[in-house]
Amino acid sequence: MKRLAILGSTGSIGQQTLDIVRSFPNKFKVIGLASGRNISLLAKQISEFQPQLAYSALKLSLPDKVKFSSMEEIASYPETDLVVIATSGKIGLTPTLAAIRSSKKIALANKEILAMAGEIIIAEAKRHRAQILPIDSEHSAVWQCLRGEKAEVARLLLTASGGPFYHYSSSQLAKVTADEALQHPTWKMGRKVTIDSATLINKGLEATEAHWLFSIPFDKIEIVIHSQSIVHSLVEFTDGSVKAQLSFPDMHLPIQYALSYPKRLPNSKLPRLDLVQVNSLTFKPVNYANFPCLELALEAGRRGGTYPAVLCAADEIAIELFLAKHTSFPDIARIIARTISLHQGIANPTLDEILAADAWARETALQIVNKGSLCY
Amino acid sequence: MKRLAILGSTGSIGQQTLDIVRSFPNKFKVIGLASGRNISLLAKQISEFQPQLAYSALKLSLPDKVKFSSMEEIASYPETDLVVIATSGKIGLTPTLAAIRSSKKIALANKEILAMAGEIIIAEAKRHRAQILPIDSEHSAVWQCLRGEKAEVARLLLTASGGPFYHYSSSQLAKVTADEALQHPTWKMGRKVTIDSATLINKGLEATEAHWLFSIPFDKIEIVIHSQSIVHSLVEFTDGSVKAQLSFPDMHLPIQYALSYPKRLPNSKLPRLDLVQVNSLTFKPVNYANFPCLELALEAGRRGGTYPAVLCAADEIAIELFLAKHTSFPDIARIIARTISLHQGIANPTLDEILAADAWARETALQIVNKGSLCY
Repeated sequence: MKRLAILGSTGSIGQQTLDIVRSFPNKFKVIGLASGRNISLLAKQISEFQPQLAYSALKLSLPDKVKFSSMEEIASYPETDLVVIATSGKIGLTPTLAAIRSSKKIALANKEILAMAGEIIIAEAKRHRAQILPIDSEHSAVWQCLRGEKAEVARLLLTASGGPFYHYSSSQLAKVTADEALQHPTWKMGRKVTIDSATLINKGLEATEAHWLFSIPFDKIEIVIHSQSIVHSLVEFTDGSVKAQLSFPDMHLPIQYALSYPKRLPNSKLPRLDLVQVNSLTFKPVNYANFPCLELALEAGRRGGTYPAVLCAADEIAIELFLAKHTSFPDIARIIARTISLHQGIANPTLDEILAADAWARETALQIVNKGSLCY
Repeated sequence: MKRLAILGSTGSIGQQTLDIVRSFPNKFKVIGLASGRNISLLAKQISEFQPQLAYSALKLSLPDKVKFSSMEEIASYPETDLVVIATSGKIGLTPTLAAIRSSKKIALANKEILAMAGEIIIAEAKRHRAQILPIDSEHSAVWQCLRGEKAEVARLLLTASGGPFYHYSSSQLAKVTADEALQHPTWKMGRKVTIDSATLINKGLEATEAHWLFSIPFDKIEIVIHSQSIVHSLVEFTDGSVKAQLSFPDMHLPIQYALSYPKRLPNSKLPRLDLVQVNSLTFKPVNYANFPCLELALEAGRRGGTYPAVLCAADEIAIELFLAKHTSFPDIARIIARTISLHQGIANPTLDEILAADAWARETALQIVNKGSLCY
């Protein structure tokens, strides 16, 4: 029986994690749940799974047996074996560190955490022997391909669906609405991640995550457009052999794999892949010119230090402004680029310096828009 | 330093095995070489690799230091670590058993051995702790995908290029010439294997091999047409996750993997896969009606006993007759089907019974053609 804490339980990954728990009531027990503002769903989850600890960003009346606790307390609670980090953006960063410092297993779905603070997270995880198990479909694929392999990796090929606008011209991209950007062709995900998929910035964050998770240098990480989202990523070994992990695009599988690892659990509720029905898997080069967010994210990853944190913070603000219809889709890249250009990077930053860079970038991104100083 | 014996050294797989030895002179040493009738090439190989033992089907003058030995002697020679079985048809069967009984590692490229005598081979390999390492690209792919995995396999998906005639109608198939059948679209292979790829009988033999090598029941083995020959096979686990092995179609890689296992050796001479250049990987259902050899082979595998040996023997005769222009391409299936229909199968046969069934089938197949008793 694995005892779980789920941070971000009302989000897309959190809800799917609870689906897996429901499928295996004898394998997983929920000890802690934490959510943001969706307290009506959290109340239902608490009633169904009866955790010992709960947290929400808004005030919530709890049953007597459930103790209101901070996310850090939930993440480090002694009776927990595995902490699922299903938050989005930087909010999961300090709870993740708390889980690491308590030597928990960590199933990580929050892309920004490793992108922002990969060096610190990996060093702390080594020090505290905390295993980090990726939930992201691409990293789960790489992790599965590396299973049992001791050879050096020659190349990682991260696949990208390309999002809903991959075939758009730059003039079409200028007219994209928030509603259009929220319609992903292959994946059902949360709002922020869906927009990040449309700008392709998510692949740059994932490359940075992969760099930290698997100790792969950036020059060995390539991105390829694979619009069917069936091949979740590929690993090339030094002998030229390539391994790939494939499945129907559904996050339940990588979530279950991280929860059940090193076992695989038979689960008839998970969709089966029918390759003959899929018929064709295509691979195309990335159009970097039309999706400048991707190169911005890769460049921030390569520069390291506080740059990825600034990128992530500016991205969060730019997406909020875009979803609120204050700015255009191409403005997301412009806001990020301008914020980064104003940043004085710090190498080997402390966590406080990363959080300070994050705060600075949020303010700066907002000012850039409010003062109308975006470069067109 | 691994010490190798290579049986079938002048064939396609044998020559490519020696290419790998050439690339790693400090890792592999050739102790024994055996060939059939190509003694001029064998003489060159002996001069280059200086083995201690050699065999050929025809008389051959050997340097003083090289001892003429039977294939069984070479396969069981104490100074050998790994025996590459690169023969074709049933000739490799008794040398393979000799290698197994001497507890050698066996790199197996000869499809018919496991198809004909899988039960005996696997039981003897267990008894003598002889590892069987597949060289066939499909089985190497499955083996690589299973690496580090302990979970049950839900499904094997063996890929088939479909050969040169996959889009032919049955009337077009009736007119196929030997020269056309010897032109494989993606793989460069020996003559027998090339014709076996054109009739698709090879996939039935490979399914039987996979059944024995990986203990997978036939109902969990599926075949899918993948004309690019890039995805060499796929494994689906019980959680629905699918792993695939991909590479440019070139046998050097699976040969090297079997030779270097458990290591992978960096080898810049092996071709790299460029998925963007490949562009599209397609998967289509098998047209069993046009390629009856495939169902014949699967059925023989499922029935077991002496049936696969009869199938293989009739296939060898049918191919010889086809290449000699005595019979047509569709006659290959007819000769095999008629031979099998006349066979009284033996369950759990001994090796002698398998060899007797083989001899019976060769004679019967010839008689069927000579007496003109093929059913049209």
